[in-house]
Amino acid sequence: MYFSKLFTIIAMLYITLYKEEKAMSPYDDQIFFTRGNPAVEALPVDTLSDCAASIFKKEGKVLFQYGHYSGYKPLRQWIADNYGAKYEQVLIGNSSMEFFSFTASVLLEKGDAVFLEYPSYDRAVTAMRRAGGDIVGIPLEKDGVNIEAFKEALSRKVPKIFYTVADFQNPTGVTTSIEKRKIISELAREYGFFIIEDAPYKALRYYGEDVTAYKEIIPEQVIYINSFSKILSPGIRVGFMIGPESIMPQFHKWSEDTYIHPSLVTEGIVFEYCTRGLLGPNIEKLKDLYRPRLDSILKALESYMPDGTDWIKPEGGFFVSIQLPDAVDGKALQDNLKDFGVVTAKGNGFFTDLKGDQFLRLPFCQMEPEEIEEGIKRLAEAIRHFSS
Amino acid sequence: MYFSKLFTIIAMLYITLYKEEKAMSPYDDQIFFTRGNPAVEALPVDTLSDCAASIFKKEGKVLFQYGHYSGYKPLRQWIADNYGAKYEQVLIGNSSMEFFSFTASVLLEKGDAVFLEYPSYDRAVTAMRRAGGDIVGIPLEKDGVNIEAFKEALSRKVPKIFYTVADFQNPTGVTTSIEKRKIISELAREYGFFIIEDAPYKALRYYGEDVTAYKEIIPEQVIYINSFSKILSPGIRVGFMIGPESIMPQFHKWSEDTYIHPSLVTEGIVFEYCTRGLLGPNIEKLKDLYRPRLDSILKALESYMPDGTDWIKPEGGFFVSIQLPDAVDGKALQDNLKDFGVVTAKGNGFFTDLKGDQFLRLPFCQMEPEEIEEGIKRLAEAIRHFSS
Repeated sequence: MYFSKLFTIIAMLYITLYKEEKAMSPYDDQIFFTRGNPAVEALPVDTLSDCAASIFKKEGKVLFQYGHYSGYKPLRQWIADNYGAKYEQVLIGNSSMEFFSFTASVLLEKGDAVFLEYPSYDRAVTAMRRAGGDIVGIPLEKDGVNIEAFKEALSRKVPKIFYTVADFQNPTGVTTSIEKRKIISELAREYGFFIIEDAPYKALRYYGEDVTAYKEIIPEQVIYINSFSKILSPGIRVGFMIGPESIMPQFHKWSEDTYIHPSLVTEGIVFEYCTRGLLGPNIEKLKDLYRPRLDSILKALESYMPDGTDWIKPEGGFFVSIQLPDAVDGKALQDNLKDFGVVTAKGNGFFTDLKGDQFLRLPFCQMEPEEIEEGIKRLAEAIRHFSS
Repeated sequence: MYFSKLFTIIAMLYITLYKEEKAMSPYDDQIFFTRGNPAVEALPVDTLSDCAASIFKKEGKVLFQYGHYSGYKPLRQWIADNYGAKYEQVLIGNSSMEFFSFTASVLLEKGDAVFLEYPSYDRAVTAMRRAGGDIVGIPLEKDGVNIEAFKEALSRKVPKIFYTVADFQNPTGVTTSIEKRKIISELAREYGFFIIEDAPYKALRYYGEDVTAYKEIIPEQVIYINSFSKILSPGIRVGFMIGPESIMPQFHKWSEDTYIHPSLVTEGIVFEYCTRGLLGPNIEKLKDLYRPRLDSILKALESYMPDGTDWIKPEGGFFVSIQLPDAVDGKALQDNLKDFGVVTAKGNGFFTDLKGDQFLRLPFCQMEPEEIEEGIKRLAEAIRHFSS
């Protein structure tokens, strides 16, 4: 009696769930355009392991002991040499992301304005907001922020910080033109704000020419943030910042007061990898891996997207983004995308006012070209479905 | 003419500097009682390197890729199993120290009171103060904080947090008695504050019996912080916290918003080391190494210290501390210690009101027994010199 009831309940549950699933999606698989991860097959695990063995043998007693709050000295020197900075300007940390908190905490007073691109990298927005920043989003166009809007915002309130991902921006894929970089640098000089140039994708250019960094244009007011996450390994969590000498002592102190010092063990591995001359070739390998994936997504968008849908055509990085036409019910689309066998991050998270219903970010580096094409096909189908 | 002048200048400079040095210190060497570092010869570098090779082979694709914001899952589970907690209660980070900032940021509003021992670990004071905490030092006695003073402070302002190093405290070496732990736990229950129990030295007991942790007495209000720095390696920067389930989601989120996730590479190495069953034996090895050093410092203090000088006699940990009699000019002593061939951290840093002239912290784990004895002998000579 008891068991037969239990059986009935289980059977009903099974049927309900099974039917639910069938109703939800006709696809057995889902294609994930979600996180901006490097391709797992591109992680040079064996080489990193070999580098670890070497450096532990040579420097183990240093790496496994307490060390300097600004990071493993030889790696600091390597970064200084390779990014045209002085040793004192370099601070290494456990990821570049933590430097968002560092810069916000060191530079901002509660209520100070922070300008950033609209849309922007959601995690940077969170870090700046958490530190009490008054966040002002400046609309982003295909060649960088709208300069008129930037000036208009400046006339209302001068920020302490302008945060930008100037190359292959997360989430849009936009690269800021040299013209706009120069104009914004001039404004920074005139109004005295810092530019935080977050450059994790800069080295991953698959086509065209590198655009001069803000760091080169106005070094005295730029905090340049970069990391080994996209060009070597994210799990190793090694990032660095290069800032003007005038403000670096505050950052070195902030680092010490936060965690005594960052992980030397991982920094040692990265140092060994870099001094063996492997980083350059690894970046070339990554470009060769990712270039066809960029080709694939751009071609698929061209082939399948309905008229009126607009997208960014980047020459590098991890992301392409889509702007849906007004005729598409973006909210319904994003809420129900998995019914079409495709998953994306919610667009809202990238917008300071959460108005990202018409926006989709598409990371493309983790997928084979065929999977990318299939994903875009499914996405196009969904867009058509939610068009009025 | 030019050269002879130059020669004269150099010669005079040399004489001045040489005489200065001779006047400053009759010792060619200095004995450093400064940082609380583990003995470098105790770092199991080769074994850690072997662990790295193994875990990178098995789990490299996971460890070098982006991962979970609460840390490497198998290590979280290992910690949960070995510290009597649930998986969700465990958060791993890049050092235990960063959890001071985490707890302060998550739990404190600006102006909230933080009680801590007086003297206390200087870095914890800095982190709490940085987050806007109103720091209240409760005088520390040889068996824990003065209970009357604690109650008196409570009657003035109820804190959000009581921060304590209950075992072999940094900087004093004091272990809080079980009686005082129970009284403070009762007060925490009555007044609703959290106890932050920082326990890096707890496992390093060379004599006597372990005292029950606050975590066991009042788990629902304790944030237990520990790390692998003192029992394995500090440079690897792996710490963890175990907190009540009610507040842990805020901490997991804070972790993600700070650095996406901590370093998985180092956590993987620690995990391999622990699951090979090596941590327990390593702790025993450390105890055997440090026990004679504790013996040596206590014996030397007994032999050489002038009457009226008082010190803590710990049964474990890294530190012995000295309280100088009033008749000693502590400030002059600390300012001129190197003239006597010995260096210590300034006592002031450990006191919330900077009144630490009569206090000296003596870390003893990094030195051979003979060096410890010589250091204490020199210190005693200095104390006699500055006695009125």
